Amino acid sequence: MANSRKVIEFFYDVVSPYSWLGFEVLCRYRNVWNVDVKLRPAFLAGVMQGSGNKPPGLTPNKFLYMAKDLHRLSQYFQVPLNVPSNPFEAMFEKGTLSAMRFVTALQESEVGGDKQVEQVSRELWTRIWSLDKDISQPGSVSEAAVKAGLSASDVEELLKLSTSKQIKDKLKSATQEALDHGGFGFPLLVCHVNGKAEVFFGSDRFELIAHCIGKSTLTLLGVNLYRNAHFGCTRIVTNDPLY
Amino acid sequence: MANSRKVIEFFYDVVSPYSWLGFEVLCRYRNVWNVDVKLRPAFLAGVMQGSGNKPPGLTPNKFLYMAKDLHRLSQYFQVPLNVPSNPFEAMFEKGTLSAMRFVTALQESEVGGDKQVEQVSRELWTRIWSLDKDISQPGSVSEAAVKAGLSASDVEELLKLSTSKQIKDKLKSATQEALDHGGFGFPLLVCHVNGKAEVFFGSDRFELIAHCIGKSTLTLLGVNLYRNAHFGCTRIVTNDPLY
Repeated sequence: MANSRKVIEFFYDVVSPYSWLGFEVLCRYRNVWNVDVKLRPAFLAGVMQGSGNKPPGLTPNKFLYMAKDLHRLSQYFQVPLNVPSNPFEAMFEKGTLSAMRFVTALQESEVGGDKQVEQVSRELWTRIWSLDKDISQPGSVSEAAVKAGLSASDVEELLKLSTSKQIKDKLKSATQEALDHGGFGFPLLVCHVNGKAEVFFGSDRFELIAHCIGKSTLTLLGVNLYRNAHFGCTRIVTNDPLY
Repeated sequence: MANSRKVIEFFYDVVSPYSWLGFEVLCRYRNVWNVDVKLRPAFLAGVMQGSGNKPPGLTPNKFLYMAKDLHRLSQYFQVPLNVPSNPFEAMFEKGTLSAMRFVTALQESEVGGDKQVEQVSRELWTRIWSLDKDISQPGSVSEAAVKAGLSASDVEELLKLSTSKQIKDKLKSATQEALDHGGFGFPLLVCHVNGKAEVFFGSDRFELIAHCIGKSTLTLLGVNLYRNAHFGCTRIVTNDPLY
């Protein structure tokens, strides 16, 4: 039987702070919108290279503005995001290739959903984009994975799997798929509606996405739902006539 | 006596479609938020050069996405925006230097507010970003100005004034001011709150701007106010408990 639930694919890399914001907002809306979110770990540097795009932070004024913008958005969305002390080292010198291979290996192994992928991704984002900690070393990735609830032995196996050709190819192929969807940065959201793929870039198009999938963003007492994590995974009980 | 009303400066160039969206949204919120909007016509190409930024449309995937994004946003915001048939010619080859000098001359001459600046800017945006018409020739600018309600003789005088050193310098100085605020593109919104200037870029940060000036974006029957021009300049009469 065909699944009539709408599907939103979420292409991301934990190197990208705007992806973290989009990820948390999408996780909050998922149940309210009754959509299936398909996490698509991919490699942002590959998308930038493949599309000929340049990281926005290379323009000094833009870099300064982005730091301010992220600070404001972190408060607005209630995501504990902090710019690392040396963002260029964290993002470009160390990079996230091994971290994203690990997440890809986890997704390949996880059965019955993406719960662990979600949790490990969140822990990796928390390390790099909140706690200013490394995520490029195997020990760093392990710490994140254990914190997300994986066993030490599972982590060890996944670290091994993550350097296999199979997983390297899977990450490459997800990255290529993002490019094939017209991607030039992350997050990239692909909404599958009535057999058509509608592509959105960034963490600031949720009203348009809601419209696209026939839903709406919700406001409760003047506070947009996506600001408030509390409502994300619970049934909303309210007298607000907008519901 | 000090004016206690909050002021939002809006730096823009009619070459920029996202500036048009931001302009219309700001015009709709102006009365609801009870803020003074200070229009700041400036020259985007100068801001790009001064900040070392590159036009986003030069990356092919980004260009295609922007065309789609603008189409979606035009429907969402109910602004009749259409991408011109040859956007590169319109934006980069013809450009908007003479149009923005004309708007600057108009602002220099207008007394008692920015009403004509607002109307002429809207007509210029409508020509380039809705009707696919030229705005680089004096005759084109005249047509827009007359449509906005200016007399033929006023237009003639303004066209003359707009090539004076005084006006060229004024446009340069507004452009420099945008750079001094950390600008790297338009629209650039500078909110003056408690003696502090808070800078925002783009047409998708209105929730943050509302928060910054101690207001909120409003939702009426599930439709955000800024989607609906109808509410922009009228008193809102509603039973909606959010008001």
